[in-house]
Amino acid sequence: MTDRGLFLGRFQPMHLGHLAVLQRLARQHDEVLVGIGSANVSHTRMNPFTGGERVEMVHEALREAGVSNALVLPIPDIGRNTLWVSHVESLVPRFRVLYTNNPLPARLFRERGHEVAPAPFHEREVYSGTRIREMMTEGDEWMDLLPPAVVRVLRECKGVQRLRDVATPDGAVEGFDPTV
Amino acid sequence: MTDRGLFLGRFQPMHLGHLAVLQRLARQHDEVLVGIGSANVSHTRMNPFTGGERVEMVHEALREAGVSNALVLPIPDIGRNTLWVSHVESLVPRFRVLYTNNPLPARLFRERGHEVAPAPFHEREVYSGTRIREMMTEGDEWMDLLPPAVVRVLRECKGVQRLRDVATPDGAVEGFDPTV
Amino acid sequence: MTDRGLFLGRFQPMHLGHLAVLQRLARQHDEVLVGIGSANVSHTRMNPFTGGERVEMVHEALREAGVSNALVLPIPDIGRNTLWVSHVESLVPRFRVLYTNNPLPARLFRERGHEVAPAPFHEREVYSGTRIREMMTEGDEWMDLLPPAVVRVLRECKGVQRLRDVATPDGAVEGFDPTV
Amino acid sequence: MTDRGLFLGRFQPMHLGHLAVLQRLARQHDEVLVGIGSANVSHTRMNPFTGGERVEMVHEALREAGVSNALVLPIPDIGRNTLWVSHVESLVPRFRVLYTNNPLPARLFRERGHEVAPAPFHEREVYSGTRIREMMTEGDEWMDLLPPAVVRVLRECKGVQRLRDVATPDGAVEGFDPTV
Amino acid sequence: MTDRGLFLGRFQPMHLGHLAVLQRLARQHDEVLVGIGSANVSHTRMNPFTGGERVEMVHEALREAGVSNALVLPIPDIGRNTLWVSHVESLVPRFRVLYTNNPLPARLFRERGHEVAPAPFHEREVYSGTRIREMMTEGDEWMDLLPPAVVRVLRECKGVQRLRDVATPDGAVEGFDPTV
Amino acid sequence: MTDRGLFLGRFQPMHLGHLAVLQRLARQHDEVLVGIGSANVSHTRMNPFTGGERVEMVHEALREAGVSNALVLPIPDIGRNTLWVSHVESLVPRFRVLYTNNPLPARLFRERGHEVAPAPFHEREVYSGTRIREMMTEGDEWMDLLPPAVVRVLRECKGVQRLRDVATPDGAVEGFDPTV
Repeated sequence: MTDRGLFLGRFQPMHLGHLAVLQRLARQHDEVLVGIGSANVSHTRMNPFTGGERVEMVHEALREAGVSNALVLPIPDIGRNTLWVSHVESLVPRFRVLYTNNPLPARLFRERGHEVAPAPFHEREVYSGTRIREMMTEGDEWMDLLPPAVVRVLRECKGVQRLRDVATPDGAVEGFDPTV
Repeated sequence: MTDRGLFLGRFQPMHLGHLAVLQRLARQHDEVLVGIGSANVSHTRMNPFTGGERVEMVHEALREAGVSNALVLPIPDIGRNTLWVSHVESLVPRFRVLYTNNPLPARLFRERGHEVAPAPFHEREVYSGTRIREMMTEGDEWMDLLPPAVVRVLRECKGVQRLRDVATPDGAVEGFDPTV
Repeated sequence: MTDRGLFLGRFQPMHLGHLAVLQRLARQHDEVLVGIGSANVSHTRMNPFTGGERVEMVHEALREAGVSNALVLPIPDIGRNTLWVSHVESLVPRFRVLYTNNPLPARLFRERGHEVAPAPFHEREVYSGTRIREMMTEGDEWMDLLPPAVVRVLRECKGVQRLRDVATPDGAVEGFDPTV
Repeated sequence: MTDRGLFLGRFQPMHLGHLAVLQRLARQHDEVLVGIGSANVSHTRMNPFTGGERVEMVHEALREAGVSNALVLPIPDIGRNTLWVSHVESLVPRFRVLYTNNPLPARLFRERGHEVAPAPFHEREVYSGTRIREMMTEGDEWMDLLPPAVVRVLRECKGVQRLRDVATPDGAVEGFDPTV
Repeated sequence: MTDRGLFLGRFQPMHLGHLAVLQRLARQHDEVLVGIGSANVSHTRMNPFTGGERVEMVHEALREAGVSNALVLPIPDIGRNTLWVSHVESLVPRFRVLYTNNPLPARLFRERGHEVAPAPFHEREVYSGTRIREMMTEGDEWMDLLPPAVVRVLRECKGVQRLRDVATPDGAVEGFDPTV
Repeated sequence: MTDRGLFLGRFQPMHLGHLAVLQRLARQHDEVLVGIGSANVSHTRMNPFTGGERVEMVHEALREAGVSNALVLPIPDIGRNTLWVSHVESLVPRFRVLYTNNPLPARLFRERGHEVAPAPFHEREVYSGTRIREMMTEGDEWMDLLPPAVVRVLRECKGVQRLRDVATPDGAVEGFDPTV
């Protein structure tokens, strides 16, 4: 059977830290499954880009880097921790190991009998989604931290302008209040 | 085709600032659509009144003010920014312009090709839902800030007492904890 | 008709304060209904244990204490305050009084015409779910605050270890971000 | 307090039978609330038109007929009979009587203590949504059965063409199967 | 650890066939868990009674029969087969065997590694929920097929009258159509 | 910008008819997006296989056939026709044309301004999911109708046995009734 590793991330946006991990996992497995988490969430300060935009970012960056044994799959949130592992299992091909550094996904997958390993990141303080979104909002130099393909997708979907619009204090549709 | 403008607000509660905007839009369009946002949310500190109570407030205040070319429509939250514009479109008659001062709705409607204009408010620091809810909670004089019809609806549904009950720190049904 | 009292709590975890209240209500009514609130929520810092684990804790502790006229029933959240009372009514046998010290459930049930009475707790600062979860996380002595049956269930489901895992700052599946 | 009657219907599409009932109720009450049921459903053989299109049909037809004391309100389905009455109550102003000829809504509202009266229809075999949709699909003469305003809305939204498209045997998005 | 068997049924209504099975399982296990399936569904021809009414029926009938080692637990539908086993697991105490005669639940639980055994029914053609609901609708003699406690609950909640109301051809709230 | 075509299907299971269409579209576009519709549905007679199993079938069959410019993406149902196009758009990379032979998706995408073209199938009576599922249930010879990679996935997930289990008349979890 095909040996697959599953990596889960939000990729808001995809950066060179992600790319390095995925390249490494692609060498260690027959195939890498890349789950785009919270694929239903977008247009918020923490999650500015849509699931489809992030699928496009990751897919294009992997192709640009010559990684041909990866599948990029959107995973919407399910809103209930006890169902989340079954939810992920039902949307992706069978896999042998989950890679994550986050204790909650690790615990949930382990409670269901899955093998879980840490994701081999380095320089996490440099390649950090939170930091990159702040640089985008502030107008700092962020392009060197992303694969060129991702910079191109962001330009085409006017992503940085959207992030600035939604990064205002009142940027929430629910609870929106045009007048207070 | 009828020329319609859409105004979206939470109306927690409806105040004289809302009324002035709606009167102005009613003069500029054949018809004004008034969307009551977060119509499914109630009994919280930020959203004390039900969708139905707010429909009643706005409808009665407009009738009292002699505005006869307005439709008041409850809009429940949809919980997903990429679907929200389609959701609103599917619940209200066709319209030409959305009026809002909130950057997120403005952005979402513009991304879908809608014309968006700022809502012509004035004295926003005086006529503010947040401020009025605080005055109601504290027992300050708030009635002069609302249309008389709204004061009447609030009295009939015992709205101020409800606001005080839910404005306590533990006022959340989910995550409710009678004993901690 | 059977005279029933309904007590609602989250039981994260069940402690001796809960047990004392339930024993007292069991003497005052033909039957006590024990609603396990937020039964769908688990693996979070405030709600570490699943609905099923909490049903088991409460049921075993009541049996251990010799209370035989209680029904323990999981109540998932409904996410909408105006529907919550109908939701609870539709899942439990008919009852005469709701016991709660939380103003929001009290108000919601009273608005629907139910009799509501305060839950007869004492020493709430000692027997407090929040305090017990902190003691569990910190490694303090917490076992004396719980019925022995609950300590046993927690040991079998490795509950304290789970609480420590999810009590980390990034412990949320939605919005999870293995890499940031 | 304003005396209101609530009429619930799907209005797929609004026809002269609906109009006659609403005109009569408008004379009997200070105000008529017109709930557009299944407002979230559209593009099916039984429910071809969107909630917003139906709000527009009913509102325009009532204005054309000179009825000025009606509110037209979209009511999405809730998918759970025990919650449905609370759901309707939470979206519309307070009312005194529900008018319906359907036994299930009648029973649900009566179980919650509401007054329910039959809707005063006549010639139901002539003015029937099912029959009118069939006539539209088959190309028969249907325009005389609808208020002129509704015919205009249908023409503008190309409603009859849509009905014919979705009235094919495989017309369901879920379970859609382009290839079988 | 307590040895528990789980029995799942809809109990529309509970009858003597259910009771005989539960009595037998209560002798074979330390504890029987009785899951009330589709607990969210009611007021339909196939599911006339609410989850709470069915909890009450089963609990009262078991008490009447002297079965004291059973827990009755409402299980709402989840609407997705791949999540259903995790959903049930998250709402009930731990169990060793599932009893069911229905191939789909059997398959779903087996795919997740659970032990599944057939439910030891006899005379299924006599003690059949479908048949009993038909007898109730038609006015035939059905009381001898139910435990006396269930007959009492049905009388108190006017269950047979409700069944007759909803058993009409148009008895569905969604897709309700007062006028056609 | 990359020129992409989107093909939507349920792939229950993937067969040689699908493969021929996808090969053809892969030659006509820079990239083919393959949306696995109803990805949340499984274990039913019409939808026996999970979204993940179908992603695996399609991905493996395309790799086996040497198609390297395709992305396979699970698309859960959204349950509301007016939101479905926005839902699909939010989960997949940008595309230029939708290929479908089903009138409802075609209409929904056209109403939102998308280009829609027919899917170039041939021999639809031979390569038909419905027919293949019947052959699997009946034990007829079906393997020649599928790509070898799909036959292998089906064998590994014991797919044919599952289909036979769920193809029984009572195979529905909701509304399940072990005893009737």
